[in-house]
Amino acid sequence: MDILEDNRAYETAVEKKCISSCRVPLHNQNLLSIPNDHLYHIALSSGDNDLRQMFGDVKFVCFGGTPSRMEKFARFMSRELGLGTAPAHNFAGNTDRYALYKAGPVLSVSHGIGIPSLSIVFQEIVKLVYYAGCEDVTFFRIGTSGGIGLEPGTVVISESVVNGQLEPIYKQIILGKQVERPAVVDQDLAQNLHNLALEDDRYKTVKGTTLCADDFYEGQGRIDGAFCEHDEEEKMLWLREMHEAGVTNLEMESLGFIAMCHRANIKGAVLCVTLLDRFEGDGITTNLQLLHEWQTYPQMLAARFIKSTLGL
Amino acid sequence: MDILEDNRAYETAVEKKCISSCRVPLHNQNLLSIPNDHLYHIALSSGDNDLRQMFGDVKFVCFGGTPSRMEKFARFMSRELGLGTAPAHNFAGNTDRYALYKAGPVLSVSHGIGIPSLSIVFQEIVKLVYYAGCEDVTFFRIGTSGGIGLEPGTVVISESVVNGQLEPIYKQIILGKQVERPAVVDQDLAQNLHNLALEDDRYKTVKGTTLCADDFYEGQGRIDGAFCEHDEEEKMLWLREMHEAGVTNLEMESLGFIAMCHRANIKGAVLCVTLLDRFEGDGITTNLQLLHEWQTYPQMLAARFIKSTLGL
Repeated sequence: MDILEDNRAYETAVEKKCISSCRVPLHNQNLLSIPNDHLYHIALSSGDNDLRQMFGDVKFVCFGGTPSRMEKFARFMSRELGLGTAPAHNFAGNTDRYALYKAGPVLSVSHGIGIPSLSIVFQEIVKLVYYAGCEDVTFFRIGTSGGIGLEPGTVVISESVVNGQLEPIYKQIILGKQVERPAVVDQDLAQNLHNLALEDDRYKTVKGTTLCADDFYEGQGRIDGAFCEHDEEEKMLWLREMHEAGVTNLEMESLGFIAMCHRANIKGAVLCVTLLDRFEGDGITTNLQLLHEWQTYPQMLAARFIKSTLGL
Repeated sequence: MDILEDNRAYETAVEKKCISSCRVPLHNQNLLSIPNDHLYHIALSSGDNDLRQMFGDVKFVCFGGTPSRMEKFARFMSRELGLGTAPAHNFAGNTDRYALYKAGPVLSVSHGIGIPSLSIVFQEIVKLVYYAGCEDVTFFRIGTSGGIGLEPGTVVISESVVNGQLEPIYKQIILGKQVERPAVVDQDLAQNLHNLALEDDRYKTVKGTTLCADDFYEGQGRIDGAFCEHDEEEKMLWLREMHEAGVTNLEMESLGFIAMCHRANIKGAVLCVTLLDRFEGDGITTNLQLLHEWQTYPQMLAARFIKSTLGL
């Protein structure tokens, strides 16, 4: 209950702090006294770049793991929105920490692997859309995951996100103290996305609970990492327990993503395709061509939502 | 005390498990029953690639954040070892999760940002050097950091690494339970590296305590992120406390790196240059050319160690 009370107190505080003249609210008043804020990891800055002119029309930000996937997604969105087929420009090209592309009102951003990596680019993008004066922005994470009891190639819309102990809480250590951030999923957005799934889609779309781990091997119960102190039987027992608790898929960013969207008062959703069924094994054995096709499924669902919202 | 007892028990267990015929020990006997182990995130596999022929001569693995920096380091090492000036080949080129270069007995690997990102490539590299039959391998993290009370451009060799609550412990959640891994620095290696620092080096080299945070902004006390609930005064108080506790620099991977080296029975060291003095501010204001020069300092120290060990 503490976390929920904290959450209500926090939300009241945010309302007071928000600067009502911009739709993407400011959650750090210190920024008002920084004349030129360097968004260091995406090689842009509030003083040296005209962020309003460059990004003021942004309505959707889609995050995903790798630079190449997000470059392809930007080109796909560009075609979907009838904006042509020119190669996408990487606005963060002066660094290779992250990649940042734009297709009309859609930003496509790589976040690397894990919450720490995501947290940096997420915060710099929140500052970017604030400085650009963007209105009514929605964030998506469109990624890959391991499934539990689902046919590989299924798209999971997260209706809840939890840590490895099934808590919907993103824990941070700030100035030596542990702070808990509630990871509250926007149920309307999740349902609206699910409503866009069609009977004759090539892929199945389900809603479920996403478990966010801090590593790929032991943290997801795998037995094929460099280290392992549990066996196949213990792994299967744990996977069955997770399945019974409603966990549909495992990945490494959803918890931080949803908690930060909630804290930022920005609508956010997580859409991940499953690349394997963990009940069948730990390794991904599907051929690369099919994996690449599967990775486009959450992109296609996000694109459908974006076009529907834009009235296209 | 618990963690130290656990550690002793663990070390005894590891000794029993290790397969004595290879110098880089195996810490997961499940791997013995996998005929073709896909090192998925570096696009190599034990069955499809002749890892022994490709990497059997590796003696040093240097990890760092970005692909471009590690590509430059591979070219630098290649020149230092008299192996020519040809462009480095990215062995992990079929994925853009990580990059992997080789210069003679030196691997140069990008690890992205944060422990979760590092943990994946670290484990796949441990498996790679095991499958390749490498002997007497030493791992380095050569990276960047924020300094506390040090002249920017100083190289810090970590003599201890701690989390945001000053504990030398890397915490994982495995099968629903929290597990603590001690981050024990190899003091001989740290001292041997420090002994190689010269009076007339362009940069200062110190030993110190490295604080490993899980994010760049709030986790390192910064007040210029998208979110902030503390002020300049509270930040400075915390930085002074950290300084008094011996913390010389802040980054995001050292704790997992050292804990995993220790667990893998592989000698490991962390060498980071400081890009700013946090007593002077949160943002990096140094020009890009100088930043790039500073980033070569830990590389130069690692190269000196490598050449010295090889008798060059």
